[in-house]
Amino acid sequence: MVTPPEPEEKKLRPQTYEWKMVTTWPKNYPGLGAGANRFAKRVEEMSAGRIKIKVYGAKELVPAFEVFDAVRQGSAEMGHGAAYYWKGKHPATPFFTAVPFGLTAQEMNGWLHHGGGQELWDDLYAQFNLKPFACGNTGTQMAGWFNKEINSIEDLKGLKMRMPGLAGEVLGKVGATPVQLPGAEVFTSLQTGAIDAADWVGPYNDLTFGLHRVAEYYYYPGWQEPGPTLELTINKKVWEGLPADLQAIIRYAAQSENQDMLDEYTARNNAALDELVNKHGVKLRRLPDDVLKALKDASDDVIETLVADNKDARKVYDSYRGFRDQSLQSMTVAEQSYMNVRSELQVKG
Amino acid sequence: MVTPPEPEEKKLRPQTYEWKMVTTWPKNYPGLGAGANRFAKRVEEMSAGRIKIKVYGAKELVPAFEVFDAVRQGSAEMGHGAAYYWKGKHPATPFFTAVPFGLTAQEMNGWLHHGGGQELWDDLYAQFNLKPFACGNTGTQMAGWFNKEINSIEDLKGLKMRMPGLAGEVLGKVGATPVQLPGAEVFTSLQTGAIDAADWVGPYNDLTFGLHRVAEYYYYPGWQEPGPTLELTINKKVWEGLPADLQAIIRYAAQSENQDMLDEYTARNNAALDELVNKHGVKLRRLPDDVLKALKDASDDVIETLVADNKDARKVYDSYRGFRDQSLQSMTVAEQSYMNVRSELQVKG
Repeated sequence: MVTPPEPEEKKLRPQTYEWKMVTTWPKNYPGLGAGANRFAKRVEEMSAGRIKIKVYGAKELVPAFEVFDAVRQGSAEMGHGAAYYWKGKHPATPFFTAVPFGLTAQEMNGWLHHGGGQELWDDLYAQFNLKPFACGNTGTQMAGWFNKEINSIEDLKGLKMRMPGLAGEVLGKVGATPVQLPGAEVFTSLQTGAIDAADWVGPYNDLTFGLHRVAEYYYYPGWQEPGPTLELTINKKVWEGLPADLQAIIRYAAQSENQDMLDEYTARNNAALDELVNKHGVKLRRLPDDVLKALKDASDDVIETLVADNKDARKVYDSYRGFRDQSLQSMTVAEQSYMNVRSELQVKG
Repeated sequence: MVTPPEPEEKKLRPQTYEWKMVTTWPKNYPGLGAGANRFAKRVEEMSAGRIKIKVYGAKELVPAFEVFDAVRQGSAEMGHGAAYYWKGKHPATPFFTAVPFGLTAQEMNGWLHHGGGQELWDDLYAQFNLKPFACGNTGTQMAGWFNKEINSIEDLKGLKMRMPGLAGEVLGKVGATPVQLPGAEVFTSLQTGAIDAADWVGPYNDLTFGLHRVAEYYYYPGWQEPGPTLELTINKKVWEGLPADLQAIIRYAAQSENQDMLDEYTARNNAALDELVNKHGVKLRRLPDDVLKALKDASDDVIETLVADNKDARKVYDSYRGFRDQSLQSMTVAEQSYMNVRSELQVKG
């Protein structure tokens, strides 16, 4: 049989891609999963369907904590998650999400996009055959839910608290017992008393989980996650094989979603905190100064230990800390100072 | 003469667009003009050259304050500037840039993208045959440069200060003399004593203008512009004639640049403030409480007068103020609280 020549139109039609994106979130999870979905939709819209991305929730294709490996090995082209989940792969990864007493969302974005952070991230992930982008941020989280008041560091001793990662290590250093639990188990574990306290995200996500029904006190500020960046990862070979226009579409879809997720959290946290406090009577409390000081000292130790034996991690930390030190000065005359003035004037009428 | 038939390839090649973008900034102006350039480049990259945008600085095609009219009348397809320049067209426009004691960048983005702001902006600008997008933010500005200390509201009486727009009216109400000056004249006017004080933008832009060489005191916080949004405007007929993929490319190029300009200001303000204070010996001062209180009261009056006789402006203000009131609560447990804790711990070592 003779194959007929391809019609002109078909030869000119550009190549199309059908990709899988695995994520560390439950499918369609508010905020985080919604951001992954929006990113995929934006790429499809901008490319007029040349790239179609099917988004998978955690466990649909691979478990949450296998997203990194699935993408670098190419069983999925893309992943959405958080770099600090991959601390076991490399000790520098947490700096690309959040570390205790680190950068806010605005500062993370400044560091990544105009302060040298992206270049360090690219170098680090290239070792794993991955290309990373910032793709979402929750803003400053809350310190967590408690069933008793925390009046001194003594009140944390022996407390079983759901707290993942580096912040869990910090809690361990001040005498608490950190517990690793997936989000889906937080409510029941608090309800049954299997844990005494829990960190989750912030007002928007915590309200949808109903955590105010199983804990009385809601503490701030989120020292453990001051502005966590979510990540988009792409298999580096897949990335390098794309034409320049599709690379640009992915790059700016990620940056637009990086903005949009923070916008959504900012708006919905506003409304959710209002509901938690004014409708459900949640008791808002600020962690006492001496508790925060102890947590800060322990955090410095934990981070020093993290980077101690790895010169790449040390290099990332030096860059991150340099940016934070300058921010500490400049924010006291900018957003921080302004918001304080606005609060004071509001109180005075 | 017989026209030869078009080759197949040409018929299938998609429509291309060559557009003019007029801006209210000097061409390539750091921060603001750089953002306009980046936006244009992103659209061209993502569309593989189907849209080419030539960016014009102020006065190259039209003067800065004719950008709005040039775009709505179609003599340019796009514009980049700030909505508060068009207060004379409609009293609601300032809410889409910044008003005194209003929203920060993070809050503006939350309000616009997930709090109902964009829909109000679309409705307002549709009356002028324009489609608007947020496309850049400077972050919280500084209160300005002075050649004497401001210790009480008396020190503002009779002071000739460069201050545009609503904030100029506010200064007038507390006894100062607001002066309208284009940026390019700020340095010389301060140097010759034609004005006593000046607001410009913030550390990054102010350092490049050399304002520290003609004024001794640098005051904060920027009560007058806590997080000004820059705008992209598109002629609405041009916008509606675009295919969906190119609309998406413009939408997300604008949102990615909206993020990127703030990132650049955040990073460069950090470094510039460090240089101003530690290299040039600029004296940083916070405006005293009673001065800020007087400015806040005058601001409330100026905004009330602005919206008094226009129900569309009142509707925008109600939405904006509702978002600000919720933010006032939620920021005191989020970014604001966190940054205060971080500063206090830093001071304590």
